Amino acid sequence: MFKRCEKNPVIYPSDVKPSAEGYRVVGAFNPGAVLFNDEVILLLRVAESCIPEPGKVRVPGYRFYQGRGIPEIMEFDENDPDLSLRDTRGVVYRGKEYLSSISHLRLAHSIDGINFTVEPTPFICPASPDEEYGTEDARIVCIDGIFYINYTIVSTDSWCTALATTTDFKTYKRTGIIFHPENKDVSIFPEKINNKYIALHRPNNSGFGKASIWYAESPDLLHWGNHKCIARPRDTAYEAMKIGGGSAPIKTDEGWLCIYHAKGENSRYSLFAMLLDLKQPWKVVKRGKAPLLEPECEYETTGFYGNVVFTNGTVIKDGQLFMYYGSSDETTCLAVSSVDQILCDL
Amino acid sequence: MFKRCEKNPVIYPSDVKPSAEGYRVVGAFNPGAVLFNDEVILLLRVAESCIPEPGKVRVPGYRFYQGRGIPEIMEFDENDPDLSLRDTRGVVYRGKEYLSSISHLRLAHSIDGINFTVEPTPFICPASPDEEYGTEDARIVCIDGIFYINYTIVSTDSWCTALATTTDFKTYKRTGIIFHPENKDVSIFPEKINNKYIALHRPNNSGFGKASIWYAESPDLLHWGNHKCIARPRDTAYEAMKIGGGSAPIKTDEGWLCIYHAKGENSRYSLFAMLLDLKQPWKVVKRGKAPLLEPECEYETTGFYGNVVFTNGTVIKDGQLFMYYGSSDETTCLAVSSVDQILCDL
Repeated sequence: MFKRCEKNPVIYPSDVKPSAEGYRVVGAFNPGAVLFNDEVILLLRVAESCIPEPGKVRVPGYRFYQGRGIPEIMEFDENDPDLSLRDTRGVVYRGKEYLSSISHLRLAHSIDGINFTVEPTPFICPASPDEEYGTEDARIVCIDGIFYINYTIVSTDSWCTALATTTDFKTYKRTGIIFHPENKDVSIFPEKINNKYIALHRPNNSGFGKASIWYAESPDLLHWGNHKCIARPRDTAYEAMKIGGGSAPIKTDEGWLCIYHAKGENSRYSLFAMLLDLKQPWKVVKRGKAPLLEPECEYETTGFYGNVVFTNGTVIKDGQLFMYYGSSDETTCLAVSSVDQILCDL
Repeated sequence: MFKRCEKNPVIYPSDVKPSAEGYRVVGAFNPGAVLFNDEVILLLRVAESCIPEPGKVRVPGYRFYQGRGIPEIMEFDENDPDLSLRDTRGVVYRGKEYLSSISHLRLAHSIDGINFTVEPTPFICPASPDEEYGTEDARIVCIDGIFYINYTIVSTDSWCTALATTTDFKTYKRTGIIFHPENKDVSIFPEKINNKYIALHRPNNSGFGKASIWYAESPDLLHWGNHKCIARPRDTAYEAMKIGGGSAPIKTDEGWLCIYHAKGENSRYSLFAMLLDLKQPWKVVKRGKAPLLEPECEYETTGFYGNVVFTNGTVIKDGQLFMYYGSSDETTCLAVSSVDQILCDL
């Protein structure tokens, strides 16, 4: 059982300073999480749109210059015959698509894991055309003192997963695309197994089945192969549409504990646990029947995109499992349990 | 300019013996190609459906047992209320999809490159559930005496690219999935560049843009990374829908010559050339404006899926470039040119 933090949501969009003049923050959610120097560090997905103006359609965008992204505002007359609505996600102007909101990644710090200070400027934001539509949903794992941050990048070439490294959360180094389109929900294991780095990933499936959780191996964290599909959505209302991995798997005596999300009927997102074999982590040992968490509180059922709980960041703090999760693609929330309790319930 | 072989098509479905009783061959197309022991070897995609019976719907399928696929026939009463047509590709019975045809890979040999003997049994055929819906569209490249065969595998987990190796075209070894779903049209370069193996690949793009040609690197041909999108469809009738790579790029003084396919308006497939930089093969140096080949002859404009010319197999034979190509997803054809001529036309 997870117990929700009484202070939920622990971070609101209004707690985050916009990254550019004319922008407004509409989401601060789906954080990666890690312990660093006795603090909980979150790497929030910050979604920004433009402050509206009557008669205008204004959308955010980036101009790219010497490896940097410079935020801009595209402004169209709302009656311009060349402008058309794509869907809720954006507009099309003369064949080019513009999103109504674009995300970057922003750090937040906390001593107690509950009260956070959000940094005033972005940490990782779109820096090249392959990140044109945003950087999203970071996962952080520490291996041998280096923090590996994988995150979803979105562009006209679709969505895929890139990697960056840091040792101090002040500077970072981009190391390229590790999973080609269309792939997200990548979680890297915190140690090598059988002398290989291991990750779970979530390729798209527009064919005969449903998007599922895959396994991959790497000699160096940059090149990935030996892909295997290891967990598919079950035939339940909770998992009717797709499933995908969360933050770095947690090592326990009974196996690798993975908290994954399931998109079910009516696009409702819930969280489940599964256990992978310690030495053969492509084998699912156990899989929870009941969700660990599902949208129930008002901040989970209503918001930018209601009925979503989604986690990509957990930390073990003082013996407890702190699970940070995005609620309704809008706020960051916290629920607390323990590894023993989750294993006992599984 | 390519000159079509007067004997086209050089291989018809009727030249191929079915792989199981009750099966019939409906396509022998899209061959991988390589020179081996003074012969041209083709690895054909052989598509099979079931011999029809009145009142029945019969579809091919595989049962998997100890790493082997055993071909079977699924037979349904055509009036069974649990049976529904999915689309032209197959049927759905009690929630499970069945394809109307399934492909395996079959060897054919020729001394002159024109008259082929097709082997009586499959070379690579579906062997596990991740190949349930077929093995398709092989590419062959020889590196240091080993032949690497990559091919598309199809299942309910969607479509992706697997690798196998052979040294004798009698036995082979499967080495797993090298590009996760959804990815096909993989062509591996015949030598390392900057101490890395290189491949072009074609991820799906269901997002904002169109499916394009990507670049990737590998230390060992098994694990792939540093993915970059290097060539997108141009705004022409020929390339209106998507583009994808062909057989192994050919080294020339001017760069790596790649023959790629373009899916254009009305789903018409044509073939184009592009040249990649010799040392920085993620850079497109030149790209042909006019197609090398487009569907014009009757065997190219009509057939199982008309208006398709598609190549994944070329060989240099006696100084000429022999390009084998699938016509209308049904037959195998040949067109001949030379590398110099293609470079001159580019």
